[in-house]
Amino acid sequence: MSSATESFISSRAADWIAFRRDLHRHPELGFTEFRTIARIAERLAPLGYRLRLGAEVIRREAMRGVPPAETIAQCRARALAEGASPHYVARMGEGMTGLVAELSRGPGPVVAMRFDVDALPIHEATRETHLPAKQGFASARPGAMHACGHDGHAAIGIALAEIAAQPHTEWSGTLRLIFQPAEEGGRGGHAMTERGIVDDVDRLFALHLGCDLPSGRVAASATDMLFSTKWDATFHGRAAHAAANPERGQNAILAAAQAVTALYAIARHGHAPTHVNVGRMEGGTGRNVIADRARLEIEVRGLDDDSLAHMDTRARAAVEGAALMQGCTVDLVEVTRTVGATTSPGARGIVAASAAALPGIDVVESWPLGGCDDAAFLMRRVQERGGEAAYLIVGSDLAAGHHATSFDFSEGALLVAARLMAEVLQRASATRKLSIG
Amino acid sequence: MSSATESFISSRAADWIAFRRDLHRHPELGFTEFRTIARIAERLAPLGYRLRLGAEVIRREAMRGVPPAETIAQCRARALAEGASPHYVARMGEGMTGLVAELSRGPGPVVAMRFDVDALPIHEATRETHLPAKQGFASARPGAMHACGHDGHAAIGIALAEIAAQPHTEWSGTLRLIFQPAEEGGRGGHAMTERGIVDDVDRLFALHLGCDLPSGRVAASATDMLFSTKWDATFHGRAAHAAANPERGQNAILAAAQAVTALYAIARHGHAPTHVNVGRMEGGTGRNVIADRARLEIEVRGLDDDSLAHMDTRARAAVEGAALMQGCTVDLVEVTRTVGATTSPGARGIVAASAAALPGIDVVESWPLGGCDDAAFLMRRVQERGGEAAYLIVGSDLAAGHHATSFDFSEGALLVAARLMAEVLQRASATRKLSIG
Amino acid sequence: MSSATESFISSRAADWIAFRRDLHRHPELGFTEFRTIARIAERLAPLGYRLRLGAEVIRREAMRGVPPAETIAQCRARALAEGASPHYVARMGEGMTGLVAELSRGPGPVVAMRFDVDALPIHEATRETHLPAKQGFASARPGAMHACGHDGHAAIGIALAEIAAQPHTEWSGTLRLIFQPAEEGGRGGHAMTERGIVDDVDRLFALHLGCDLPSGRVAASATDMLFSTKWDATFHGRAAHAAANPERGQNAILAAAQAVTALYAIARHGHAPTHVNVGRMEGGTGRNVIADRARLEIEVRGLDDDSLAHMDTRARAAVEGAALMQGCTVDLVEVTRTVGATTSPGARGIVAASAAALPGIDVVESWPLGGCDDAAFLMRRVQERGGEAAYLIVGSDLAAGHHATSFDFSEGALLVAARLMAEVLQRASATRKLSIG
Amino acid sequence: MSSATESFISSRAADWIAFRRDLHRHPELGFTEFRTIARIAERLAPLGYRLRLGAEVIRREAMRGVPPAETIAQCRARALAEGASPHYVARMGEGMTGLVAELSRGPGPVVAMRFDVDALPIHEATRETHLPAKQGFASARPGAMHACGHDGHAAIGIALAEIAAQPHTEWSGTLRLIFQPAEEGGRGGHAMTERGIVDDVDRLFALHLGCDLPSGRVAASATDMLFSTKWDATFHGRAAHAAANPERGQNAILAAAQAVTALYAIARHGHAPTHVNVGRMEGGTGRNVIADRARLEIEVRGLDDDSLAHMDTRARAAVEGAALMQGCTVDLVEVTRTVGATTSPGARGIVAASAAALPGIDVVESWPLGGCDDAAFLMRRVQERGGEAAYLIVGSDLAAGHHATSFDFSEGALLVAARLMAEVLQRASATRKLSIG
Repeated sequence: MSSATESFISSRAADWIAFRRDLHRHPELGFTEFRTIARIAERLAPLGYRLRLGAEVIRREAMRGVPPAETIAQCRARALAEGASPHYVARMGEGMTGLVAELSRGPGPVVAMRFDVDALPIHEATRETHLPAKQGFASARPGAMHACGHDGHAAIGIALAEIAAQPHTEWSGTLRLIFQPAEEGGRGGHAMTERGIVDDVDRLFALHLGCDLPSGRVAASATDMLFSTKWDATFHGRAAHAAANPERGQNAILAAAQAVTALYAIARHGHAPTHVNVGRMEGGTGRNVIADRARLEIEVRGLDDDSLAHMDTRARAAVEGAALMQGCTVDLVEVTRTVGATTSPGARGIVAASAAALPGIDVVESWPLGGCDDAAFLMRRVQERGGEAAYLIVGSDLAAGHHATSFDFSEGALLVAARLMAEVLQRASATRKLSIG
Repeated sequence: MSSATESFISSRAADWIAFRRDLHRHPELGFTEFRTIARIAERLAPLGYRLRLGAEVIRREAMRGVPPAETIAQCRARALAEGASPHYVARMGEGMTGLVAELSRGPGPVVAMRFDVDALPIHEATRETHLPAKQGFASARPGAMHACGHDGHAAIGIALAEIAAQPHTEWSGTLRLIFQPAEEGGRGGHAMTERGIVDDVDRLFALHLGCDLPSGRVAASATDMLFSTKWDATFHGRAAHAAANPERGQNAILAAAQAVTALYAIARHGHAPTHVNVGRMEGGTGRNVIADRARLEIEVRGLDDDSLAHMDTRARAAVEGAALMQGCTVDLVEVTRTVGATTSPGARGIVAASAAALPGIDVVESWPLGGCDDAAFLMRRVQERGGEAAYLIVGSDLAAGHHATSFDFSEGALLVAARLMAEVLQRASATRKLSIG
Repeated sequence: MSSATESFISSRAADWIAFRRDLHRHPELGFTEFRTIARIAERLAPLGYRLRLGAEVIRREAMRGVPPAETIAQCRARALAEGASPHYVARMGEGMTGLVAELSRGPGPVVAMRFDVDALPIHEATRETHLPAKQGFASARPGAMHACGHDGHAAIGIALAEIAAQPHTEWSGTLRLIFQPAEEGGRGGHAMTERGIVDDVDRLFALHLGCDLPSGRVAASATDMLFSTKWDATFHGRAAHAAANPERGQNAILAAAQAVTALYAIARHGHAPTHVNVGRMEGGTGRNVIADRARLEIEVRGLDDDSLAHMDTRARAAVEGAALMQGCTVDLVEVTRTVGATTSPGARGIVAASAAALPGIDVVESWPLGGCDDAAFLMRRVQERGGEAAYLIVGSDLAAGHHATSFDFSEGALLVAARLMAEVLQRASATRKLSIG
Repeated sequence: MSSATESFISSRAADWIAFRRDLHRHPELGFTEFRTIARIAERLAPLGYRLRLGAEVIRREAMRGVPPAETIAQCRARALAEGASPHYVARMGEGMTGLVAELSRGPGPVVAMRFDVDALPIHEATRETHLPAKQGFASARPGAMHACGHDGHAAIGIALAEIAAQPHTEWSGTLRLIFQPAEEGGRGGHAMTERGIVDDVDRLFALHLGCDLPSGRVAASATDMLFSTKWDATFHGRAAHAAANPERGQNAILAAAQAVTALYAIARHGHAPTHVNVGRMEGGTGRNVIADRARLEIEVRGLDDDSLAHMDTRARAAVEGAALMQGCTVDLVEVTRTVGATTSPGARGIVAASAAALPGIDVVESWPLGGCDDAAFLMRRVQERGGEAAYLIVGSDLAAGHHATSFDFSEGALLVAARLMAEVLQRASATRKLSIG
């Protein structure tokens, strides 16, 4: 890395961290990232990036798990109230909160980098030992939190965009920065892929902070990138007086509770990481009424199609058996489904070489993700059309694990990631163009 | 019954039924019955009844399970928007939605009659076979329904008030009509009792429609009037990523589900009706997060202190064992507690004689209620001070059981009840004054 | 009661108590009561009773829940080794361990009395505070115990037989004493009924000690004599290595456990005592193998056909839902089914009058049994053919409830019962013969 | 491999397969392998091996999970009745059913090979599609089955012993063949290690057939060799009449069932294979008695100390929470605990080179075992004292997975394994002696 670039990074670091903290304070859930995307667009436009938003980068028919229209409208109004550019907000329409920013510089391959920007429906910790709380940038929105580091991903995207736009930065070709909504739940990646935004990409890089990889380390690829299915199960029973005529009821809450215990008891696979979770449950009306309705939000995961199919089959049996127990019926609706992906050797080599060029960084060839990331949809599309794709992990010491209420990453990792992606851009744009399509 | 009274009843029947249907269409949950009470007050004032409302009849400190202030404010505003008298609404303050109406006519005992007026948090059935839906008087408020017949109780109270106010109706002494809020959950009866509204009552009569007693029958007293405890259990765990680090979570949803299965599995008593219900459950945030919070609304019932204590002890163990299983903590808060009561023989005799005087009515001495009614607080107070109290049941064929979404009673029972209570008034006021206090 | 009879009872009391203690020390489970019946026969033959045993009093095809032939053979051998008369043992064949003893004295009705004699599969308490342990007559057979008082019933039968055989005892007609096996599980009563042993009976009396009725009280009839169904559920799954390939297993133990929690969670009836129990469970082979088989012994009870049908339906759903959850199949076999019965008013009057004749005894008209007794089969048969039947309860303070490991009754009740049944015999034989058949 | 060895193997193959089938037909559970070990000893003695048995090779104090003395006595008697040499049987005493056979040939290192020989408590499939059933060598002992291939391991040990004893076979040093009992449940390996039988070993090789590795492949080492804890949980409650007084009971069966559902629901680790199983459950006495005792046989597994500790902690909470729910107490006894081990690189190299020398065999460096093997105790001891150890897998197509009732391996794998171990012996004995102790 040139000393000019190093100087630039040093001079900008504080601002990038401030940007991340602003996003952290204003978390937005999947398909409502109006303010987040607008803020990013406002920064990239002046740098010369060509911006595409909303329907230009998201295929509406391919969106899944979209919040109710009312929720989207409220979030949009809130973004505007908080000063988001009406121009950009309008272009995102009914939840198409994605952005693709592109910069070209001479001949060369198309290098894409993907950054996801959504938050989670978690109440952030408020105790003093939680750094964001102590320093005043904890979520200002009860029930929403950047508990997976996507605020950091967005900041890395901004940093890389600024670095790449500097005249002295060495690279050639086309840089495409993808700011993706709704990674949680595995919804946005598919909708952007189906809009064709990576169909002409030679090399795609997606990154994640943390993932139990300590600060100072970079993994050039991820294993155990899980497949998943997201189900909603709604039990329908029959209400009755809980003391006078309980025998006339069909108890939907009891069915749901029995389903929960059966779901967690599913036999995990002997040779593949497999998981199940019930992240939400809700049911019943009054205390003295046997509940006639209850609802569960379920997900199952597996290492591959086979182990996911095992989990799917068993989850279905758990839910249906519970309904049968109580004489209830159950609607089991698949909300979405994600896949895994593997890193292309060529792309992994570029990441490894880039990381090796950074002083004080320890490079590992691969690291288990142990979770899902719908970057897999983009990666698979790139690979299917002849390109290469990598999923890399930038280590960062965590205050608590991903999705914990006191999750927090070490911000030093933002600068490591900025430097790393700059190196990746240089190397990836210097390699030959592939035969795509 | 005099032929004048009979004629009066015949001429008024259609209006009373219309009144009941208006309440049915506008159900109000416990401690938010602003419109209901205002409508009743508007009808009774012109008849010469002395009205006491709000803090005059409810002891605020004794109110339990009060809805959030925001909810109360919304309901109050809605009542006003729907034309409820601002004067009466204002007097009910922050949820003290009770009314006592009194009429005196010469010397004689104080005869009280209690009518509960609240609805349930149930979504009313919408199918054509459900009469209220077919005839257009089903609930206009999603999530609230008169599914226990309290709309009918209110109409019976109006009918009796009108009959008693007729000059030709024979009775003497003081008639006190108690329109009580929040019977569901057993909250209003206690708060009115503690305000002293029955401290000087000689004879108290509380009634219920239905209760699996067929049309054409009247029960002069109720057995199996259950004791109950209402608990809220909130489980606190630790959030974690559901696939990357499930081992770091403490799963509050799973704890709650295990508690539900354990609660319903409590050994029922060998010699006493005992019941348990979980009427509401809610927990978790996002699908891919191990839930750090879940909440259950629980009630247990028993025939007496002993069998209720058994259920209480076991319920506590079920909830605490479930928390222990998941390394969670649990807050178990007693929301309220109700008692049972037995009918005084003297009062039962008055009811039996009154029912026997009605043509075509079959009188039974007692009938199992199998549920709770916080009229018991009022009854016990009257009995403790030397008075007599009865809990009577007016049979009515039901389309579906109490608390079912398609609950509906036969409106003919309203007129039976009106005639019955007029007879009761006559007989009760004709017997000697007791030594009260 | 004549002073001669009183003197006789006093002189014999110690022996009857010793007889009861001998049975208590040598408990025998249903359809293996070889020693018990032989000991009774050995005592009754010299008194002039005509004895019928085995196939003469039990219809073999109607026997249900019969132990394996090997078990029966072992029990028979044990009885012989303990000195039971080979003559009587041989007559009882393969588990037909019932006895009918008859004595006639002049003209008069046929009065039958039924005494059940079997023990339970319970390990008796051994601590010093348990009287049978302290006094050395606790069960000598691990896993079997007279925990319901049937040892006492047998002793009462002996006492009554001796009293009736005294020349000075006043009665006339035919006395038929029925010593019934296998009351526990409701098996022997049906098999004796089907053999026709009460087809010509005018009046039948069955009694039980204890039942939470205190010493000094007698109930002339029992309410809440429950109906029941006994089910065996066997789950069949698929074995697999518990760590290498758990996904290939179908877990029968987990299915059974889920069935247990679902069974106990069945909604009890609002207006009828209803119960469920899983008294035995067993499953699996090795610790590191996913179990391919598990078995539950279930019973459900209700007050009548309707409430039992509710429990049956829900139990079936619980078991089938659990199997579905685990991809198992389940065989649900009805082992037996018992009914309730009500006491005939005439017979109740005889019992009440007899009890009233005893000094210091408090008579109650009825008492809830809260359990099953297959005397109901005999009672129903008698009533169907024109006779009368009563189920009476002789109060006895209990050290612990029926079926508890430290159950013990107060032996004074034996003498109360002996006196009572002598009075019943006198009155029942003195009333007119009914028209039977 | 020399052509002489090849010819020898061909000539002996049928006999080795017959030997395996004889063991398959006569399976013996852990610490009762009297017949199996005697048969092996009878074959090895004539070949010149020095034999040590019983207390010479097993440390009695270190034996865990030993069957009752009565069971051991019955199995010993059965072995004698089936013709096992009384001399050898006597030397094995009370369950010390292990054998070490040694042959020395010139200078060189001590090379040990370990073969486990015990069966599982599984009922073998009897259908015609199951080859052992079809060909008549299925288990003749109901409830016991060689469902993990240890019969094959024993046959491979015999084959290697014969090959090594041939004068033309090239090797030098000391060959020590370890025939180990009670691998299932992880009991025998520890007891032999503690007797010091590998304290002077330079290189140790343990092998397993199958493990989902197909025929024609050999894995030179195993990963995912799990740690485990085996627990017995006994719940103690209070018996009561299931209908008359259920409220007095403390239900041990229900507690056990709730523990089972909680155990299987334990959150599995995000980054380590972790498993739980309840392989046996048993509880209760009579159908109409609330159970006062129930017992579970539990195991948990993890990849390492940390993930096993997670499973241990959660299992304890599951069991204790279930007891609390029912007011029961629970005894949680650790029966045994196993560890994992990793293959030494040097030993892995020898296996890989040996497998590569076999025609038609595909060598993989490592393969996940996904289960436990108490060879780990022997391996760790060898490694701690300076030696090398390998755990290798010989692929074999399976009719059904390990521990399934229709498990069967392809017998061709026996000959592959015999050849492989002969090659391993040659190479291992040719490498330098290590510095041990």
